[in-house]
Amino acid sequence: MTKIAIIGYGNLGKALERIAYASDDLNVAGIFTRRDPKQMTSPFGTAFFKQDDIFDMAQDIDVACICTGSANDVTALGVRLAAVVNTVDSFDTHAKMSDYFAAMDKAATNANKLSIIGAGWDPGLFSLMRALFEGVLPNGGSHTFWGRGVSQGHSEAIRRIEGVLDARQYTVPKAEALRIAREGVATLSDRDKHFRECYVVAADGADRDRIRKSIVEMPNYFAPYDTSVTFIDAEQMRVEHSAMPHAGFVLCTGSVNGNTSRLEFSLKLDSNPDFTAAVMAAYTRANARLASKGECGVRTVLDIPVSALFDGRAEIIRFI
Amino acid sequence: MTKIAIIGYGNLGKALERIAYASDDLNVAGIFTRRDPKQMTSPFGTAFFKQDDIFDMAQDIDVACICTGSANDVTALGVRLAAVVNTVDSFDTHAKMSDYFAAMDKAATNANKLSIIGAGWDPGLFSLMRALFEGVLPNGGSHTFWGRGVSQGHSEAIRRIEGVLDARQYTVPKAEALRIAREGVATLSDRDKHFRECYVVAADGADRDRIRKSIVEMPNYFAPYDTSVTFIDAEQMRVEHSAMPHAGFVLCTGSVNGNTSRLEFSLKLDSNPDFTAAVMAAYTRANARLASKGECGVRTVLDIPVSALFDGRAEIIRFI
Repeated sequence: MTKIAIIGYGNLGKALERIAYASDDLNVAGIFTRRDPKQMTSPFGTAFFKQDDIFDMAQDIDVACICTGSANDVTALGVRLAAVVNTVDSFDTHAKMSDYFAAMDKAATNANKLSIIGAGWDPGLFSLMRALFEGVLPNGGSHTFWGRGVSQGHSEAIRRIEGVLDARQYTVPKAEALRIAREGVATLSDRDKHFRECYVVAADGADRDRIRKSIVEMPNYFAPYDTSVTFIDAEQMRVEHSAMPHAGFVLCTGSVNGNTSRLEFSLKLDSNPDFTAAVMAAYTRANARLASKGECGVRTVLDIPVSALFDGRAEIIRFI
Repeated sequence: MTKIAIIGYGNLGKALERIAYASDDLNVAGIFTRRDPKQMTSPFGTAFFKQDDIFDMAQDIDVACICTGSANDVTALGVRLAAVVNTVDSFDTHAKMSDYFAAMDKAATNANKLSIIGAGWDPGLFSLMRALFEGVLPNGGSHTFWGRGVSQGHSEAIRRIEGVLDARQYTVPKAEALRIAREGVATLSDRDKHFRECYVVAADGADRDRIRKSIVEMPNYFAPYDTSVTFIDAEQMRVEHSAMPHAGFVLCTGSVNGNTSRLEFSLKLDSNPDFTAAVMAAYTRANARLASKGECGVRTVLDIPVSALFDGRAEIIRFI
């Protein structure tokens, strides 16, 4: 059994808890929260602790799974955690990944711990596909499209704006860009390819113009895209925007010796947090396995051989 | 520069040679052939040697790329080569992979060399997808479909039958099976999923009934499938069956916490040997990189982190 700590108890943390209880190899040692542990309940009876209690309990944890909101929480907490325990996260701000990688590598290497960062689907599985496709078709150039679906990271980023009570962001691929990309000849900007559709519940009396401006000008998250912001009430949010579907694909068209090859990976998810948690669970297993062999430092999904998701040769050979 | 030896100069060897000459990091030190080297010419002026000359020249080669026909050649030659030089092959008989893996592991480990086996698209990229998909969706179960396209391994297996001058085998997915598999609830046999269509040029006076029987009863290659055998003449083969397209996909539909996730990888190739050679080139780079760090023994594509296809962190981080 791999003893995991779940840090943060939002959609992602709850999904990971449920996956762990349904598995026969992941044991949830505790949930660590910024909220008052005494006020928290779990359908599985998991023990709750204050977030910083993890630093006292680290020696009893195999892997800490960081499930807090992405934009502000993960990086600062991640670097502190990597110094005391093996970690897995699905940090999803592409533009900050290089800096986060360097900081985590230093912390984890010094502590002789192993950290896997960006273990979701993008970054994560999509990153793996982009690299694999371009590794095999060096002249190909890959394109990534997301949606239509809810981005947890972008929704959370909006929720952190003062005066916002709730938010949901849908990423929508543009049909014409998709058609061009499939022909394999395109240079497409982020703005060409996707539209960002935001639904926001504002607090009574909040300055809606300020909220709208904070969203559309937010670096990395919204500034590079065309974005719409629609204010709705809490009831409309509950009725129309409770599900968290997502979808997307990575495609690469390249020439080898003058002959065309087309590669495409796609996913379609009824629940984005459940699938992201499933990816984290898979790489949590890999983390425990590799850490037990003495590996340390930081890794992305690209650095982890797929065989590390499984125990032993017999389990792997059936795929070959 | 990585100095490679190309063993075998059929479609695959020729494709790999051309890829190497178009690259800035793969240098073809020589082509090693069972035919008479003096009779061989290359459009790039590459030097030809007798196949067994590789054993004397191994110390000057970084990676030997085994491009001989699959069914009989690769395994025996592979084990001999793994004892003297790093190797990459695209051996494609799934049923024999486990034994081949064990034999290569012993040879390569004893020699402190690194061998990557099954580095094509199936086994190869498709194996990687099956494992990745089931690692993330343990209750999913993946399905693989091939075609419509020419299988090099199966065509070569037919050509080795006495009395066969040339052969082309098309793998054809069955539409109803595909529909069922996409619903994610199927248990489908090999025979349910694909049809194997064979076109054969027989020598004058050859026993066609014997040839037909040798094909449809061939273990691993044809026995588990419905197979048609059509005899044609050499001119019809040249006109109608010269191209070697292929296609296929791996799909996996699974539930996470009661919500459905659908993953799918597909490829569509104008030239199967060119793409297979491109996969071998990518894993040849990985081999040279990992061997130079002291790794030895046998690896499949599942054991190689995708980051090993690239040089250094800066080149990798752009995919994340």
